[in-house]
Amino acid sequence: MDNEWIISDNSLEEKDLLKNESLFNVSNGYLGVRGNFEEKYPENYKTIRGTYINAFYEDAPIQYGEKAYAFPETMQKIVNVTDSQDIDIIINGEKFSVFQGTIKDFNRYVDIKKGCYIREIQWVSPLGKELKIKITRMASLKYLELFVINYEIEKVNFDEDIIIESSINGDVANFTDENDPRVGTDHAKILSVKSITAEKEVMQIVSETENSKNIVAMTTKHKCDAEHEVTVEKTDKSVKAIIKIGTESRLINFTKYNVYTDSRRHENVEKCGFEIAGKLSSISFESLREKQEEYLNKFWSLADIDIVGDEKLHQGLKYNLYQLLQAVGKDEKSNITAKGLSGEGYEGHYFWDTEIYILPFFTLCYPELAKGLLRYRYNILDGARERALEMGHKKGAAYPWRTIIGKECSSYFPAGTAQYHINGDIAYSYVQYYLATGDFDFIKEFGAEVIFETARIWLEIGHFDKGLFKIDAVTGPDEYTAIVNNNYYTNVMAKYNLKWAVKFYNELRCKDQKTLEILSDKIGITEEEVKNFEDAYTNMYLPYNEELKINAQDDTFLSKAVWDFENTPKENYPLLLNYHPLTIYRYQVLKQADTVLAHFLIEDEADFNTIKNSYDYYEKITTHDSSLSCAAYSIMASKVGYQNLAYKYFIETARLDLDDTHGNTKDGIHTANMGGTWMAIVYGFAGLRIKEDYISLSPKLPEIWNELSFGFSYKGNHIKVYMKKDKTEIISEGKSLIVLKLNKTLYEITGSKKIEILN
Amino acid sequence: MDNEWIISDNSLEEKDLLKNESLFNVSNGYLGVRGNFEEKYPENYKTIRGTYINAFYEDAPIQYGEKAYAFPETMQKIVNVTDSQDIDIIINGEKFSVFQGTIKDFNRYVDIKKGCYIREIQWVSPLGKELKIKITRMASLKYLELFVINYEIEKVNFDEDIIIESSINGDVANFTDENDPRVGTDHAKILSVKSITAEKEVMQIVSETENSKNIVAMTTKHKCDAEHEVTVEKTDKSVKAIIKIGTESRLINFTKYNVYTDSRRHENVEKCGFEIAGKLSSISFESLREKQEEYLNKFWSLADIDIVGDEKLHQGLKYNLYQLLQAVGKDEKSNITAKGLSGEGYEGHYFWDTEIYILPFFTLCYPELAKGLLRYRYNILDGARERALEMGHKKGAAYPWRTIIGKECSSYFPAGTAQYHINGDIAYSYVQYYLATGDFDFIKEFGAEVIFETARIWLEIGHFDKGLFKIDAVTGPDEYTAIVNNNYYTNVMAKYNLKWAVKFYNELRCKDQKTLEILSDKIGITEEEVKNFEDAYTNMYLPYNEELKINAQDDTFLSKAVWDFENTPKENYPLLLNYHPLTIYRYQVLKQADTVLAHFLIEDEADFNTIKNSYDYYEKITTHDSSLSCAAYSIMASKVGYQNLAYKYFIETARLDLDDTHGNTKDGIHTANMGGTWMAIVYGFAGLRIKEDYISLSPKLPEIWNELSFGFSYKGNHIKVYMKKDKTEIISEGKSLIVLKLNKTLYEITGSKKIEILN
Repeated sequence: MDNEWIISDNSLEEKDLLKNESLFNVSNGYLGVRGNFEEKYPENYKTIRGTYINAFYEDAPIQYGEKAYAFPETMQKIVNVTDSQDIDIIINGEKFSVFQGTIKDFNRYVDIKKGCYIREIQWVSPLGKELKIKITRMASLKYLELFVINYEIEKVNFDEDIIIESSINGDVANFTDENDPRVGTDHAKILSVKSITAEKEVMQIVSETENSKNIVAMTTKHKCDAEHEVTVEKTDKSVKAIIKIGTESRLINFTKYNVYTDSRRHENVEKCGFEIAGKLSSISFESLREKQEEYLNKFWSLADIDIVGDEKLHQGLKYNLYQLLQAVGKDEKSNITAKGLSGEGYEGHYFWDTEIYILPFFTLCYPELAKGLLRYRYNILDGARERALEMGHKKGAAYPWRTIIGKECSSYFPAGTAQYHINGDIAYSYVQYYLATGDFDFIKEFGAEVIFETARIWLEIGHFDKGLFKIDAVTGPDEYTAIVNNNYYTNVMAKYNLKWAVKFYNELRCKDQKTLEILSDKIGITEEEVKNFEDAYTNMYLPYNEELKINAQDDTFLSKAVWDFENTPKENYPLLLNYHPLTIYRYQVLKQADTVLAHFLIEDEADFNTIKNSYDYYEKITTHDSSLSCAAYSIMASKVGYQNLAYKYFIETARLDLDDTHGNTKDGIHTANMGGTWMAIVYGFAGLRIKEDYISLSPKLPEIWNELSFGFSYKGNHIKVYMKKDKTEIISEGKSLIVLKLNKTLYEITGSKKIEILN
Repeated sequence: MDNEWIISDNSLEEKDLLKNESLFNVSNGYLGVRGNFEEKYPENYKTIRGTYINAFYEDAPIQYGEKAYAFPETMQKIVNVTDSQDIDIIINGEKFSVFQGTIKDFNRYVDIKKGCYIREIQWVSPLGKELKIKITRMASLKYLELFVINYEIEKVNFDEDIIIESSINGDVANFTDENDPRVGTDHAKILSVKSITAEKEVMQIVSETENSKNIVAMTTKHKCDAEHEVTVEKTDKSVKAIIKIGTESRLINFTKYNVYTDSRRHENVEKCGFEIAGKLSSISFESLREKQEEYLNKFWSLADIDIVGDEKLHQGLKYNLYQLLQAVGKDEKSNITAKGLSGEGYEGHYFWDTEIYILPFFTLCYPELAKGLLRYRYNILDGARERALEMGHKKGAAYPWRTIIGKECSSYFPAGTAQYHINGDIAYSYVQYYLATGDFDFIKEFGAEVIFETARIWLEIGHFDKGLFKIDAVTGPDEYTAIVNNNYYTNVMAKYNLKWAVKFYNELRCKDQKTLEILSDKIGITEEEVKNFEDAYTNMYLPYNEELKINAQDDTFLSKAVWDFENTPKENYPLLLNYHPLTIYRYQVLKQADTVLAHFLIEDEADFNTIKNSYDYYEKITTHDSSLSCAAYSIMASKVGYQNLAYKYFIETARLDLDDTHGNTKDGIHTANMGGTWMAIVYGFAGLRIKEDYISLSPKLPEIWNELSFGFSYKGNHIKVYMKKDKTEIISEGKSLIVLKLNKTLYEITGSKKIEILN
């Protein structure tokens, strides 16, 4: 039944079920619920039963064998909160379960146009009772606190009572795996139940985290259209409603409204929970569903992209964008975690992934949501300033490598705090947002301060050496090399950061002296300091190897031995799970695009030949062990003219989670890669770049496709691009004057206009 | 009362008491007891009450925030074992304590000629009872299991009963400090009591460690020359003997024989404990004391060194050598911990300190003990081979950076496992031992295998680059710079290791084909492999900076910014306790001698000017935050002709612990520095070097001294050097033909001979 809007998987294999818990998560950026079965699996099946609230965290102490100065003492960790998924259907003592009896029909899928995850089952119990059940779940995109489950039940061949047992359970724990650095290793038991309400009308569990003292209330109301009686049972940590439905109803419609309120967003979580649950449960499920579809209609009109000629990839692409929408924080307290709200991998932390791999999509397709993500970074600026001081810097902001509330959560600094490039990445994303929207007010209010503070860090960690500005002891995006001098990526991003700090400073000085004064009062930025920024970026050292005619990844990278790929068996990938980091650091081997990524983000710092040579050199020694790698390689393969390769890498990104190619989708989807899929198309195949004064496109349609079309916003205009076998059409709608460069020609466009060029 | 043999400190200040617990430890290489008061301090005083058995360890799990492949999962940790120190003297309910009543006289000192630690107190109780007490402690150097305490008590002005309460206590814990990486952070409670014997004749507590299942028995017998009655009280974890002494004795002599037996050395620890305690308690204290003095007479005749003209330094020097004797493991299961057996700092681990800072003394003055230390490394060779495989190497041995039983205990690899130079250091110490003793049998039996296996590691981590052999991703001795390419120290030690592997291989091939065959069968060493060793060392890359005319510490060190010493306040040292490691790594700043140390150990790889220039350059940027630094700088200051500086650094080493200049003597003495003191004299002021075919001396007596004399063994001969104001005399006694180079003249010496040269 799959099509571009329907992603299904009916497997009941244990391994697939675990993976599908992630794939079939329902989330809305505030809360997310894994696709567990309401009635559970057989007892011996492995499961990660989870519900998460974005940015709802515990402070977990970090243990070190040998601790050093300014190592973070605690880290924030996303919490698996109260479980509201449990629903059992009982007929004469027989519990509904697809693992017993006979399945006559079974469909499990997510409908990304409607924003629902659905299970349809036609089932005969071991004693012969036949049921048709349709279970629909939604995390409401309109009412963020709401996770709703609807059951449509049809009694096919019997009249007996049906009992629905619906529970909420506060006895929850986080998932841990001490041997995989990509998931948490400790601190499973976080929440304790503070109070329980067990009434026929409403059930509520209020729980608190042990250290951070964050409180969450989980409030449930039920609605059943059939005649029924309710009794309620309570334990220390759970409540169960037993709903006995009269024999007369052949068709039963039952809805469980689950409302999550938390002390980071709601003033009185209990009261608020009751109120919201009261309000929302008065809305029919059908009406909620319609609102969900409306929301998605808007989203799909903005995230407007179609591939004609390759249904599987088209589906993968759509699915990925849907997941991004599900994952993105809708308030400024939260961002997009590495796994969205679909799992606990990377402990609910926010990384540079947002800025480099995810924001491009939102910036061009949904600027309002992009703004929220940027605001989040502004909101944690104080934490970054504190961290800078803690790291021994005199001023500036050192953004944490991984965090929830702004404090560094990385306990392995060579691949954490050492990645100073995150400062440049954040600055870059503000600049890109500005260039795409022209929204200078946003820069005045938030961006300038972030860009000045991040720029300052480069003067703290950099120094002049024989007239060149150099930056030592950092780690670039490629975590298979650590603590090096003059990582090309870092230096080029620092240069961009410094350059734009100077530009914005000068622009404010010309256009808005007042704002500049307020900012100077606040953070003490001076003309002299800005002069130093200028000195630093104009003399920024960008490593270049004369012999290979490539940008060197860092000062010593190219003098190392190349990893012995030939004698590395396939099962030894990803290397990080099979070799000591030091052994990996010793060799020329990349986890992911580094210089190649820099050549994408800031393409004007290198000429085409250097970019192509670098691509050729680094591609051979990149393992793509990071899910962030293929998108960058796909984009750059397009750029340097390797169409087949570009396509190959794109396939990797498009279905990475659907096909579980990294084998860890069970821990959650890979949000950065999902953003990367879109980038591989728009930045790769269409060659889009946001330049200072224009937007440029160099479309190259993959041979296998008949047509590719996508839309985006640029300075308030809506632009739609149709790439066809024989031509490219661009339709611009809106009022702004924009400049568009198509291949090598510049077009000045005002009002609505269509450009067409033949290939 | 101080003189060269007596080191005293009568302070009762809390801080001094804590420090003196370390300084007044009594140890014999097997067991060590801190200088706590038998009767304890006032309750609120901080104390680390400790007794340690060398290499008696617990396996403590290591926690990581983010764990990676091949990070050690457990580490061995020295155990604070059953406390046998408790003795109280009670007169009519008044307990003896120097913290109440009146002290008429008090002397607390260690007599390093007799090998005893003594407290002499003349004390009047609050109610006016006057006592003279002399408490003498020894860890017997002849009977290693024995820690004995003798009380001589004189009742000065009363006749009443005296009660002596003597306890043994199994309720012990290790000391932890979670903010100092130099002491343990966790795992305080390790031992649990398994059985208790509480008889009038003998008391015993048997305890076991939780994870490693090591067992220790602590057996105590008492002897009292006055008429007395004994009762015994027992709790779950302790036994107390209450010895009531008749009124008629005015002088009381009381001895507590404490015998420690452990399952790593004794087959049945309980039985063995009873037997040894029975046997030893039949020896009078006086006789034990005599045997101790005899042992020390022999030691001081070997460790024969005198400074005339500076008593405090002379005392410091003697004290340091005495502590080395106390610390050195006398079996091959144990080595010398970083703190001897005087405290828990660095958790009882063995480091490269032994090979580079301590073995030179034993090799030249007490070769039998040196041999034991070398044998220890041979005994843990299997562990080093396993670690090499775990690190991804195909063969060879990767010695652990810190260990007790041979498994890596470092949980911070950038300043741990990355210090591959420990392989070279161990190989170096074998070669030095061989060159000093001529003991080729030892090389055949143990040394060759160690040297071949350590040599192999360089081929594993090194590679050829443009014809030069390079070694990447290592950390040198200077831990303020980490994970670099071509650390000069490492490369030069690797070269020496490889060169001697080739030499010994060839020597075996010529002299002892049989041994070589056995070894080849065992470890598979081949001609071809040895050819590769030769290629590697003859092409070893040793970084040299043309501009500065110095050896560069590594490939990128000299391009970094120099640390801002001017704006670093004094209280910010040591830097490691006040700056994040990454911040430190970013700058040219040294914790300790690195290239300068290499120029001492392997002086023939660089010419004098390079050595001098390097000294000048690195000295300016070295903080000496490591206690291992000053000795190396003193030696090299002598070498390059900075006599005053040499003397200044020597002073730092000679009294580092006595004057607590690093502020952490409370955690234990600094054994490496103590070896360094001796080296600063012998290698520094006397300019001794062990060369391949001869031993060389270039004496330069510090101006402030009248005379310096020392003796050592060389190829079985005893050589005594007298450095005087006007001349140097060398007296050689023995039968071997030796070659000695004095300043620039070579002397061939057979039989006993005296050489005299005027300055």
